[in-house]
Amino acid sequence: MRKPDRLSSQPLYQQIADDIERRISYGEFPPGSLLPSERKLAEQLGVNRSTVILAYAELRSLGIIESRTGSGTRVSKYKWGAMPKHTPNWHRYVEGGSFLPNLPFLRRIREALQKDKALIDFASGELGADLSPVKEINTLLDENHYTGYLGYDNPQGFVPLRETVVSYLKQYRGIQTTESSILITSGSQQSLYLITQCLLTPGDAVAIEDPSYCYSLPMFQSAGLRLFRLPVDSKGIRPEDVRSLYKKHRIKMVFINPNYQNPTGVVLDAKRRTELLDVASELGLPIVEDDPFSLTAYDGTPPTPLKSMDAIGSVLYIGSFSKMAASGLRVGWMVAPHSVVERLADARQQMDFGLSVVPQQVAAQFLKSKYIRPHLERLRTNLLYKRDLLIEALQKELPDLVRFSIPQGGLHLWCRIIPEVNDSKLLEEAIRHGVIFVPGSVYGSDSGYVRFTFARPKPDEIVPGISKFASALRTILG
Amino acid sequence: MRKPDRLSSQPLYQQIADDIERRISYGEFPPGSLLPSERKLAEQLGVNRSTVILAYAELRSLGIIESRTGSGTRVSKYKWGAMPKHTPNWHRYVEGGSFLPNLPFLRRIREALQKDKALIDFASGELGADLSPVKEINTLLDENHYTGYLGYDNPQGFVPLRETVVSYLKQYRGIQTTESSILITSGSQQSLYLITQCLLTPGDAVAIEDPSYCYSLPMFQSAGLRLFRLPVDSKGIRPEDVRSLYKKHRIKMVFINPNYQNPTGVVLDAKRRTELLDVASELGLPIVEDDPFSLTAYDGTPPTPLKSMDAIGSVLYIGSFSKMAASGLRVGWMVAPHSVVERLADARQQMDFGLSVVPQQVAAQFLKSKYIRPHLERLRTNLLYKRDLLIEALQKELPDLVRFSIPQGGLHLWCRIIPEVNDSKLLEEAIRHGVIFVPGSVYGSDSGYVRFTFARPKPDEIVPGISKFASALRTILG
Ligand SMILES: Cc1ncc(COP(=O)(O)O)c(C=O)c1O
Ligand SMILES: Cc1ncc(COP(=O)(O)O)c(C=O)c1O
Repeated sequence: MRKPDRLSSQPLYQQIADDIERRISYGEFPPGSLLPSERKLAEQLGVNRSTVILAYAELRSLGIIESRTGSGTRVSKYKWGAMPKHTPNWHRYVEGGSFLPNLPFLRRIREALQKDKALIDFASGELGADLSPVKEINTLLDENHYTGYLGYDNPQGFVPLRETVVSYLKQYRGIQTTESSILITSGSQQSLYLITQCLLTPGDAVAIEDPSYCYSLPMFQSAGLRLFRLPVDSKGIRPEDVRSLYKKHRIKMVFINPNYQNPTGVVLDAKRRTELLDVASELGLPIVEDDPFSLTAYDGTPPTPLKSMDAIGSVLYIGSFSKMAASGLRVGWMVAPHSVVERLADARQQMDFGLSVVPQQVAAQFLKSKYIRPHLERLRTNLLYKRDLLIEALQKELPDLVRFSIPQGGLHLWCRIIPEVNDSKLLEEAIRHGVIFVPGSVYGSDSGYVRFTFARPKPDEIVPGISKFASALRTILG
Repeated sequence: MRKPDRLSSQPLYQQIADDIERRISYGEFPPGSLLPSERKLAEQLGVNRSTVILAYAELRSLGIIESRTGSGTRVSKYKWGAMPKHTPNWHRYVEGGSFLPNLPFLRRIREALQKDKALIDFASGELGADLSPVKEINTLLDENHYTGYLGYDNPQGFVPLRETVVSYLKQYRGIQTTESSILITSGSQQSLYLITQCLLTPGDAVAIEDPSYCYSLPMFQSAGLRLFRLPVDSKGIRPEDVRSLYKKHRIKMVFINPNYQNPTGVVLDAKRRTELLDVASELGLPIVEDDPFSLTAYDGTPPTPLKSMDAIGSVLYIGSFSKMAASGLRVGWMVAPHSVVERLADARQQMDFGLSVVPQQVAAQFLKSKYIRPHLERLRTNLLYKRDLLIEALQKELPDLVRFSIPQGGLHLWCRIIPEVNDSKLLEEAIRHGVIFVPGSVYGSDSGYVRFTFARPKPDEIVPGISKFASALRTILG
């Protein structure tokens, strides 16, 4: 809702009532739907609760809304529905669909970030404005006319981008492939989604890392997959665990993020890589290698991808523009056998009719441009700098209360909180202190961890952010 | 595969063999997978079949591929798989996923268009390069820096675009809404997809028009929905049919495209609109109004949308940038109760993490710019001109063999072929004659129709295109 204008001559409560009435009449809140509680709305609009009470009273007196003790304030059915007309029971539709909603913690984080722009953000898993090549991308947009035809794009993705990705993969990742084995997607997220929807079927068993990337967990569940976990230790997952999951559950696919894993930052050990490929080829088991972070390697030498060692074609490889440059372009790529690429491209036509050509053109230009090497250089240096700021701050503020390994690449630090704390309490207390992070339990079975993304906050926010976090933690510990 | 270079000193067959070997080694064709037949590959590469025979013989002699009579040519497992290693059985994965592939006719059309760039294209349902505001969009890209931060976008879509869409809907469609009731999507296609995935559940019954938009049929089926059909006559669907489907099958949603319907071009009659809304409110039944074509109204007065008459909020409204300007930006919008918008936005995060900011910015700028009115003016005039070219050509070439109503808006002409013909034969014969269209059976239960999209071919292709079509039809009729 719109914040009332304090300079207006109209009373605040009246402005609020008018705004709500307008929204109801447009259908934003259908008859019968629940309005925010007085407390919540007051908080959201930055007014006293009594102002909202007055606004609701006004609307009640007009018969527009009704309140019943214990069941909140709802849009009146009589006024708007003029029985016997029925608005669809949207609530039932919203609750009834087969696709699962996101994890509650993530929705809470999104809401908090939208409400309070001043929060220091260790939660959003992406590069901050200081690390994205915004200037370079603007220059490319200026210099290059989009001259082509603006029709539906090729279902596998913009051909010049696919060609550029082929050279990029050869040069930066040691992966040999051809343009017809490439599918351009809306980030790695869409690659993961298409794989779960098109190559697997409800009831199939798959293996994922524990802990692992939180935005893929409900997606796997929505696809009806049975999830089995591969514990990540300091050297990554153990290949024997893959074999035993296969024996026990006939897993049909393995999803891993072997390079600076999200959230742990761990790199899969070289010996384990070879063993994993051996297990995969022994069992005819596909491995999905999700590789968004490699180029952030702080020492400039990214780990060798599984795909480049994959002699017999067990690996589906996924890359992304998001973590090396800009998540807001929504450009990622998958390398897969041609039959797989065709199948996924065809399904994607039915989901969204393919990607916009414009960001694909920008990504292609950037990957080929003279800007990329200096950008990556700067990205690595600045990530390392931010990582060190974070580590020093944690060591200074919470020397006895946290423990962590030092990541050598990636955007995140995975931090153990030594005393036992309740995730939800810690998160709420941190938000109250002006700082936000992702509770570790979101990523899997471990509790007592926090993921700090140091790539996102500005450099001068990191030290104050950790000091706010430390106060929050100490408040919880009492 | 890559066409061999006729100027190279290396023999053609050798170049082909090398290219195939390279592709196999990169994993594009995994061990055990089928290669194209000699005939098909020769056609694809524009060489004699004997050249391909030589190339395959070369690869066979190296143990790289194997041919067995009756089962085609496959990549050798021994050479590449070095048993007992197993490549994943990709074929089983590709066939096994739960999402359905597209209709065979559509895949055939895509393939034919990719192979023969000279085909006159009455099949692709979009604006041709002559009708898209490519120049205007390039100017906007030049004039406006993308200054913002390139991070993940707001899950509901770029806020300035949502605000622009609110004014656009008010001004052009008579729809009152607010920015928080808007979800920006990858075209209307993604709105339809999100609705089927998130608000419905496998086994639910829904009603769709017959004939209706072909790219949504397999999508409905992939969502496990039971489809019931509403026949479209010259005034659109009949509201009584909705009521009786509800009584018989408890349909949970109605999907319609009331303005210049794809494929028939029909506009839902004004009286039927009121009746349909009455039926919907009587039954509490949601109506999805898919409205991509309205602004093409040749007389400049688009039909009134159902949504603008929807007093109690029965309608989910879907609009798109595709058919009024450029499908390649992939920008569409949905207007829905806030709880629905939130639910779909949340699910979309898991599917593709939202849309790229860049095309959303371009669309917002275009919708607000001084270019939009002249563009729409020009679009209407030119569509009308192309429609008339098509009609005259059909009347001249096939006066006794076809029958159609004259559309007053939209991109398509729905054309009855009076003598009985086999859809597939007619399509193949037309392709041989250098022209392509969509067979009517793709859209539903009627056969003996053809959809001609006159928006896509260049004006000077329309007359020759119909003359090729006429020859093809006469060939079939013998
Ligand atoms: C491991 C991993 N995979 C995939 C993604 C999805 O990112 P995108 O779709 O922007 O490439 C993320 C984002 O945080 C990630 O951490
Ligand atoms: C009726 C109808 N709805 C939706 C679409 C999807 O178009 P887009 O996703 O480009 O908006 C089309 C495209 O042909 C259509 O004809």
